[in-house]
Amino acid sequence: MIIVMKSSAGRKELAEVKKRIRELGYKPHVIHGTTRNVVGAVGDERGKAVLQTLQTLPGVESVVPILKPYKLAGREVKPEPTLVEIVPGLVVGGEEFVVMAGPCSVECESQILETARAVKAAGARLLRGGAFKPRTSPYAFQGLEEEGLKLLALAREETGLPVVTEVVNPRDVELVARYADVMQVGARNVQNFALLKMLGQLDKPILLKRGMSTTIQEYLMSAEYILAEGNRRVILCERGIRTFETATRNTLDIAAVPVLKNQTHLPVIVDPSHATGHAHLVPPMCYAAAAAGADGLIVEVHPHPEDAASDGPQSLRPEDFRQMMTRLAAFTDAAGRTLNGAD
Amino acid sequence: MIIVMKSSAGRKELAEVKKRIRELGYKPHVIHGTTRNVVGAVGDERGKAVLQTLQTLPGVESVVPILKPYKLAGREVKPEPTLVEIVPGLVVGGEEFVVMAGPCSVECESQILETARAVKAAGARLLRGGAFKPRTSPYAFQGLEEEGLKLLALAREETGLPVVTEVVNPRDVELVARYADVMQVGARNVQNFALLKMLGQLDKPILLKRGMSTTIQEYLMSAEYILAEGNRRVILCERGIRTFETATRNTLDIAAVPVLKNQTHLPVIVDPSHATGHAHLVPPMCYAAAAAGADGLIVEVHPHPEDAASDGPQSLRPEDFRQMMTRLAAFTDAAGRTLNGAD
Amino acid sequence: MIIVMKSSAGRKELAEVKKRIRELGYKPHVIHGTTRNVVGAVGDERGKAVLQTLQTLPGVESVVPILKPYKLAGREVKPEPTLVEIVPGLVVGGEEFVVMAGPCSVECESQILETARAVKAAGARLLRGGAFKPRTSPYAFQGLEEEGLKLLALAREETGLPVVTEVVNPRDVELVARYADVMQVGARNVQNFALLKMLGQLDKPILLKRGMSTTIQEYLMSAEYILAEGNRRVILCERGIRTFETATRNTLDIAAVPVLKNQTHLPVIVDPSHATGHAHLVPPMCYAAAAAGADGLIVEVHPHPEDAASDGPQSLRPEDFRQMMTRLAAFTDAAGRTLNGAD
Amino acid sequence: MIIVMKSSAGRKELAEVKKRIRELGYKPHVIHGTTRNVVGAVGDERGKAVLQTLQTLPGVESVVPILKPYKLAGREVKPEPTLVEIVPGLVVGGEEFVVMAGPCSVECESQILETARAVKAAGARLLRGGAFKPRTSPYAFQGLEEEGLKLLALAREETGLPVVTEVVNPRDVELVARYADVMQVGARNVQNFALLKMLGQLDKPILLKRGMSTTIQEYLMSAEYILAEGNRRVILCERGIRTFETATRNTLDIAAVPVLKNQTHLPVIVDPSHATGHAHLVPPMCYAAAAAGADGLIVEVHPHPEDAASDGPQSLRPEDFRQMMTRLAAFTDAAGRTLNGAD
Repeated sequence: MIIVMKSSAGRKELAEVKKRIRELGYKPHVIHGTTRNVVGAVGDERGKAVLQTLQTLPGVESVVPILKPYKLAGREVKPEPTLVEIVPGLVVGGEEFVVMAGPCSVECESQILETARAVKAAGARLLRGGAFKPRTSPYAFQGLEEEGLKLLALAREETGLPVVTEVVNPRDVELVARYADVMQVGARNVQNFALLKMLGQLDKPILLKRGMSTTIQEYLMSAEYILAEGNRRVILCERGIRTFETATRNTLDIAAVPVLKNQTHLPVIVDPSHATGHAHLVPPMCYAAAAAGADGLIVEVHPHPEDAASDGPQSLRPEDFRQMMTRLAAFTDAAGRTLNGAD
Repeated sequence: MIIVMKSSAGRKELAEVKKRIRELGYKPHVIHGTTRNVVGAVGDERGKAVLQTLQTLPGVESVVPILKPYKLAGREVKPEPTLVEIVPGLVVGGEEFVVMAGPCSVECESQILETARAVKAAGARLLRGGAFKPRTSPYAFQGLEEEGLKLLALAREETGLPVVTEVVNPRDVELVARYADVMQVGARNVQNFALLKMLGQLDKPILLKRGMSTTIQEYLMSAEYILAEGNRRVILCERGIRTFETATRNTLDIAAVPVLKNQTHLPVIVDPSHATGHAHLVPPMCYAAAAAGADGLIVEVHPHPEDAASDGPQSLRPEDFRQMMTRLAAFTDAAGRTLNGAD
Repeated sequence: MIIVMKSSAGRKELAEVKKRIRELGYKPHVIHGTTRNVVGAVGDERGKAVLQTLQTLPGVESVVPILKPYKLAGREVKPEPTLVEIVPGLVVGGEEFVVMAGPCSVECESQILETARAVKAAGARLLRGGAFKPRTSPYAFQGLEEEGLKLLALAREETGLPVVTEVVNPRDVELVARYADVMQVGARNVQNFALLKMLGQLDKPILLKRGMSTTIQEYLMSAEYILAEGNRRVILCERGIRTFETATRNTLDIAAVPVLKNQTHLPVIVDPSHATGHAHLVPPMCYAAAAAGADGLIVEVHPHPEDAASDGPQSLRPEDFRQMMTRLAAFTDAAGRTLNGAD
Repeated sequence: MIIVMKSSAGRKELAEVKKRIRELGYKPHVIHGTTRNVVGAVGDERGKAVLQTLQTLPGVESVVPILKPYKLAGREVKPEPTLVEIVPGLVVGGEEFVVMAGPCSVECESQILETARAVKAAGARLLRGGAFKPRTSPYAFQGLEEEGLKLLALAREETGLPVVTEVVNPRDVELVARYADVMQVGARNVQNFALLKMLGQLDKPILLKRGMSTTIQEYLMSAEYILAEGNRRVILCERGIRTFETATRNTLDIAAVPVLKNQTHLPVIVDPSHATGHAHLVPPMCYAAAAAGADGLIVEVHPHPEDAASDGPQSLRPEDFRQMMTRLAAFTDAAGRTLNGAD
């Protein structure tokens, strides 16, 4: 932590800052500048928000943190990439570029079975589908809940595809965990710390989506909540951030992929469906994600987007998904990754 | 809902759109333009996300909603302002400009009692204080939990100030409700719909903070979740939104006050502490809130900001709070509101 | 400047950084931390972007500037407020709260004369009106150019109100200066450095609007461009920044007022018309600006908003402006400022 | 244009709106809804900001534009892609993926010659380099001006690479045009309409960068300024937008590439250097741009980034650029584009 003194601060204010730094368990180290002094507080500052309070002392202009606030999520602690095993033979973060696909919401048996078969045939390795849906409107379809989970399990039985599905309420963690292979935390819950803590105690991979206004650093702190509880199988997912631009539903922060890969050992996938909100923009963003170094994708696919209970406009039809997967292979090749071939 | 057709769309596409509108229970109404056609879908579109799927039909360029998506929160359904009674004689949304104040976190008995006495003496009408703290870092102070709630109850007993405190986990709603007079939903939980639904079933006022990247419309939809469950005592709170500017912790969207007052009958208060992040910016934002037409404030006050377990830099000292309240009276007067006088 | 080393950096990298700091004319000062070292570069770093290049050296994680990059605009160099005299007896930044008002564009003689008389009668002290209009669309009305300037001069002659008007092209600076009392730089030109430099050589007050995505620091650097050329009469103007919120045209960053007043000695006014985009939101934002400590306002007024060539929806009618001014007096009183009374 | 009436609006207000629509030269067409009426104004609304003023009439809730405001820039007017010829045999927007590279600023003869040779050898097709530099600080290096242009011309003579360089002042257009093959408009000047109009009268390709807070629609309107003056050779360039995220200098809006390709016939390239601000993030963003369907790149390369007068941290060293180009080929192949081979 660096404490920047005001140019008007005198010896007394400086002495007070040094005293306070010592009281908090750090060692002060002053650099006398030409127009102002700065004081380094030497010691491990992580998690000690309390150092920020130095800002309230007279003569202090600002307090600048030096260390990254996360530990377990960082490359410094663990330089080698984390390989998250979903089921034997299926790993996210390794050589394979892993595609997850399926409808926004599970709607009925035929819908989920038809989609599961189609995405499997095209090369998807996991089936996505929402049973508990966080919807902006209380009047919108809220998901089939446990009935939806059962249908996902049925689709898994039929196709062999492991299942990723969202949990929104700490109360439902146990229920969802009975059915899901990967537990998804949606963008709106990225700082639902009660939920994150419970998931940290689970022995199951977690797909943690970035929030729509979460900085990279805050995002890694959310991952840290899960890691700190003991669950090390966290998959990150860039899904677009909120900006002034309205041509797309969100703005896909594609540079977040290499930024994250640089700062953390956790795998990073991309959700081009929520990022763009328009089906015709999904394929180019799939290719861009592979090119940028992502470890995989999660893509919305619906057999009849015009009838979808949610997110129809951003869902690919099975045929479009198949074509995207075919073209995708050239990009994952170029990126030095393997892609599961279509049947 | 207005469906805008592409200029290249022909009769067949138009017929398909009309057919589909009818199937969904609306009446289509075509306007033939000079370069393209638009189709109105007449009927109550609220809550029917399904109309958005028309966007997936061939020849459709975009789908533009016309109705506001909320019902119960809107002025059209209930033109007169909602008066939220906290305890007999204390109403938010009426003539009185109501100030809530207290520390970010409850830390110990002496801290909360000292603060409660000081803010009461200066004219505050409710005591704020966090017992369950949603913190970005898992290593930061997470609140005293039930012990904190008990200390708040003690301070209420001693000063007579009703208590507003945050709940973050649906599991804790019942517990917090046993102690709190007003249940606070923090910015990070504004779209924690599981929590909102539970609070909608409570017979207690809810202070619902705007999220840091929540639009006005989404914000009112979150209020709608509570209202739709039957709890009509919702207080809104503008607390700053996330923008590119880093000089302040968030950007106080002061115009949100008249925008909200125009669209909804619910009372609107302002949180200048989280909005700015710096104590010296809090008083001018308090005055601006009163001038903009807010119904009150929620302000962080700490007897010793330099020792605060959280949010020290943005907390007013009791003496600064007292001075702010003294100056505030002139602004609430100018706004035609009354302010509880200091002792 | 603080150079943060990577935790993996060794002695050799550190030595290289120190050597480089010395070469650039600074004195290196190392703080040995528990997990990493940081190096202070002591010396006046302002304007020396070159120190940022230390970031390219091996072993360097980041480079953190300590000094504010502006000099002349800062409070540290000139603690007392700058009083900008417009004409004898009219000063912005002093005790008087100065209101500038008028139409977005000058359209014709009757429009500008009618408006000038009305805003003067209501207490405005300057007349605003655009002759050169920067419009998003090439097909929109681009202003009357010199003809507009002549009409402004006519209105000044008739009412005695000094005139503030925008200049968009360095080529037109001389022309506009022949007519204007205050030269306005619009939001889109806040980083049109060629224009700023020319205005810095003028002996005339400059009204410099903040850009829609300009940080406070960048904004002050733009003011510095004018000040550095010798013109010290710069008036700042917060007019809303671009955010994700679409309920208003821009988001009025009201906290920018005290932030700026704290960092600079230059006067700060507020433009509630462009900030909100809706006439009914303008009065509450005028009151909020006065309460937040602004030195004045610039408000769009049009006798017939429904016929305005530009910005009709955000223009007040003369009668609404008069009412606003009447209510405003109570807020400027509360803020300890005087307001020019209506006739 | 669709005019949405308030639910409280009566027959009189509706009649007034219809009358006004007719006066403005449109045909009104009313759709009677269940809770409110909407009125379509049939006719070509482009460039007629004046319709927006309907918003000021009593009983009107909002005015929703239907047509895109640009004409010449749109796909509807010209469906086939525009091929911008730079010099005979070099076309942007065709089959070839065109890479432009060079230093941020031209600093001296050896620097620009060394860079020009290196980027040519690696496969670049144009040389970039700034002679007029728009810098945030008035104390930062402002460019070599005409001396810089001469050095660029020298480098062109020596290597055969056409030159792209920025113009910031309308006054310098003629001067820069004497040396440059492509005239660049920087992000800060995207709405410098005086400059755009002059460039529209030039017979030379224009590289128009997106502004940091320019929407796609505003961006195309800026292109329209150039096109409307007669110059049809406009190249667009996505270079990152300003958001809350600070891990990168800007946020590369990669989805803007397919969005633009869909709406306009103009070619679109990407600037990964300004978008990210960090050299190590540049190569993955180059690959992502190719994958997303861009027509080329403009990349900053400097032989000694640690000595660069500007933008050192985001400049690739020649060796890194060469490696990037080598890997890039696989991605342009996958995208069905050709890349100029290295020597």
